[in-house]
Amino acid sequence: MTESFKGMKPSRRQFLTGAAAAGAGAVAAGAAKAAGDPLITEVQEWAQATGEGVDATPYGLPIQYESDVVRRNVEWLTADTISSINFTPIHALDGTITPQGCAFERHHSGAIELKKEDYRLMINGLVDTPLVFTYEDLERFPRENHVYFCECAANTGMEWAGAQLNGAQFTHGMIHNMEYSGVSLRTLLEEAGLDAAGDLKDKWVYVEGADASSNGRSIPMEKALDDVLVAFKANGEALRKEHGYPVRLVVPGWEGNMWVKWLRRIEVTNQAIESREETSKYTDTLEDGTSRKWTWVMDAKSVVTSPSPQAPIKHGKGPLVITGLAWSGRGAITGVDVSIDGGKNWQEARLAAPGTDKALTRFYLDIEWNGEEMFLQSRARDSSGYVQPTKAELRETRGLNSIYHNNCIQTWWVKANGEAENVEVS
Amino acid sequence: MTESFKGMKPSRRQFLTGAAAAGAGAVAAGAAKAAGDPLITEVQEWAQATGEGVDATPYGLPIQYESDVVRRNVEWLTADTISSINFTPIHALDGTITPQGCAFERHHSGAIELKKEDYRLMINGLVDTPLVFTYEDLERFPRENHVYFCECAANTGMEWAGAQLNGAQFTHGMIHNMEYSGVSLRTLLEEAGLDAAGDLKDKWVYVEGADASSNGRSIPMEKALDDVLVAFKANGEALRKEHGYPVRLVVPGWEGNMWVKWLRRIEVTNQAIESREETSKYTDTLEDGTSRKWTWVMDAKSVVTSPSPQAPIKHGKGPLVITGLAWSGRGAITGVDVSIDGGKNWQEARLAAPGTDKALTRFYLDIEWNGEEMFLQSRARDSSGYVQPTKAELRETRGLNSIYHNNCIQTWWVKANGEAENVEVS
Repeated sequence: MTESFKGMKPSRRQFLTGAAAAGAGAVAAGAAKAAGDPLITEVQEWAQATGEGVDATPYGLPIQYESDVVRRNVEWLTADTISSINFTPIHALDGTITPQGCAFERHHSGAIELKKEDYRLMINGLVDTPLVFTYEDLERFPRENHVYFCECAANTGMEWAGAQLNGAQFTHGMIHNMEYSGVSLRTLLEEAGLDAAGDLKDKWVYVEGADASSNGRSIPMEKALDDVLVAFKANGEALRKEHGYPVRLVVPGWEGNMWVKWLRRIEVTNQAIESREETSKYTDTLEDGTSRKWTWVMDAKSVVTSPSPQAPIKHGKGPLVITGLAWSGRGAITGVDVSIDGGKNWQEARLAAPGTDKALTRFYLDIEWNGEEMFLQSRARDSSGYVQPTKAELRETRGLNSIYHNNCIQTWWVKANGEAENVEVS
Repeated sequence: MTESFKGMKPSRRQFLTGAAAAGAGAVAAGAAKAAGDPLITEVQEWAQATGEGVDATPYGLPIQYESDVVRRNVEWLTADTISSINFTPIHALDGTITPQGCAFERHHSGAIELKKEDYRLMINGLVDTPLVFTYEDLERFPRENHVYFCECAANTGMEWAGAQLNGAQFTHGMIHNMEYSGVSLRTLLEEAGLDAAGDLKDKWVYVEGADASSNGRSIPMEKALDDVLVAFKANGEALRKEHGYPVRLVVPGWEGNMWVKWLRRIEVTNQAIESREETSKYTDTLEDGTSRKWTWVMDAKSVVTSPSPQAPIKHGKGPLVITGLAWSGRGAITGVDVSIDGGKNWQEARLAAPGTDKALTRFYLDIEWNGEEMFLQSRARDSSGYVQPTKAELRETRGLNSIYHNNCIQTWWVKANGEAENVEVS
């Protein structure tokens, strides 16, 4: 300690001159307060062997100080929590991977407990050989690994009517992004044989879960044979109960409701089943009362996660990291623009890594904040050439009746005091 | 249910003929047992609304049936668990991302609890302006995101003497692979200014942690300015206490001991400090008693994670997925070869994704197992042209005195009954 303490003395003087400089200086300003601070210059009580050894937590949890980084639901949003949703705390996360422990949940009749030994998956309908697989059978087929986002079609749905939920967790938190391991659905369908189905162009698969809701959905054969996965692991380990343990469907880029959990049956059919989940639900009601149907793909979208209402700016003006997430069900994110003046001017954000197909992309914009209010927006572009629309543009084409597929540009009003609010700008 | 049950009847007949076929047939054999199984044909008790809603687990944990997928330590390996290690259950994981909850731990004086508010990071020594940063200061610098493996130098160390630990978790489990978010060390060093250091070629940084051990290590300036990260998040969320909350050093491709946790001080020096951790520890003692020093880089290595002693083959002959992990501290994995006859013949494994720099790569080999014993090996190749050596080759050059940097080819003896053992083949 002595050595490093001596080290501080000259530095503190040098520092006060340097602090005048903008930018880096402002950061150093934070450092100035800390210089000579006993927290760095004196031996602290935690600098002693603790009783906490490696066998303390065979399976670890976040430290107590992070107890606010959890899934949350909105009580008034749905009648009961059984068929309800909760939200990923995206305002407090960084990077792109979502830990399973705080990845949003949505189920229609509660999360069920299903043992691997009791698990069965039936493939029937227009196949050469209807089959029933055990969990162990599935483990014997060639596996794939892919990182994909899963977004609920109703994510940001409450915002159609106006700026309502005050935080990125609640406006955009029905999304997560994990590395899945599993077997391609194509492999299992080919195992059962598709000759009996004849021309595959007009064929569908109907997928059901083992829970009470069954949450049945129809998927066109073209998608089923493309990139759909029958997944048993997420981020390296078994799926969590609330995410469909032991097996769920992964339908890359398509609305989360089709990612059937506790996957139980896959039937090859001549037509869509037109189940509750794809008729009265998960269709977008337009201005004239008619419905947009088969709106499976989640269009390009982005949101600034920090600063945001749950992640205010606590320091003063000077260097500020603006960060957020972008994604597209049509391909890879190619760019994200950020505006601090409600869309009048745009700056290109830095992507932490090149966008990959149907996965979250993290973006950053490092600015010198002048301490004045900002109207923060982000706008995503994807490999199909699609550009994320404004809320006004979306309302013009789809009206106000829908609660699904709202991918509009989000605005956070960041005030001079650093606090942020969910607002709309015209 | 009726519909799908009817579906099974003809299929069962068709099926028994089909079962004769090899390969796919053998998988179907598993399916045969399940056909007409009430677990798929009858409504089950879990097909009813559960009381378990979305607010049941604000931060979720694995389902009870996965309680064996946890970190484990080996009691005889070290005197006490405080300064001990535990191992990642790699035999039970798939993909490449390691969940923080089961990522191995190694600390020298216990895992400490350090609040963000109490956190300070000092940069001193040969810098223009010694600085002390708060956690909030660090959040104001431009951030990066990278996936890197972290391997303890002693991983597989017990195997120098012979085949000892009976499971991939224990022989190769001192490794994890996460997506880190943080600030590059170069950015912070440049903030303090390196003009005072003069010629950087012969300079070092000495890094210390806030725990009692301090675990001080010297890092050449060239590496410090290359890809070292001052990280505060892993897999999107805050570091776990046992992984250095709130801030740890990430030294890509280099031995885990240098990834200083609870990072407290970075001193720019004229020479290496020659601390305990880099002299009496973490050096490789050779046959003649002299030591290999500065063995920082973790060479290319791989291991079959399944089948393995903790992951035996439970089904009979026929389709079998052989899978494992490969990594290199010198770059990206370019290929992995697998042998089932103890290294006499090799087949090229399938990489789940192209290898990336200093990160885990998942490989698969899908075979028709004839039901006879196998001597399973994997051999990694990296972008530097390096090929993973045999244990004999390693012993020839380094003898038997070391416990560090054992990256030799591992052999699992898989018996006809599907059980596996850790063995050596000559």
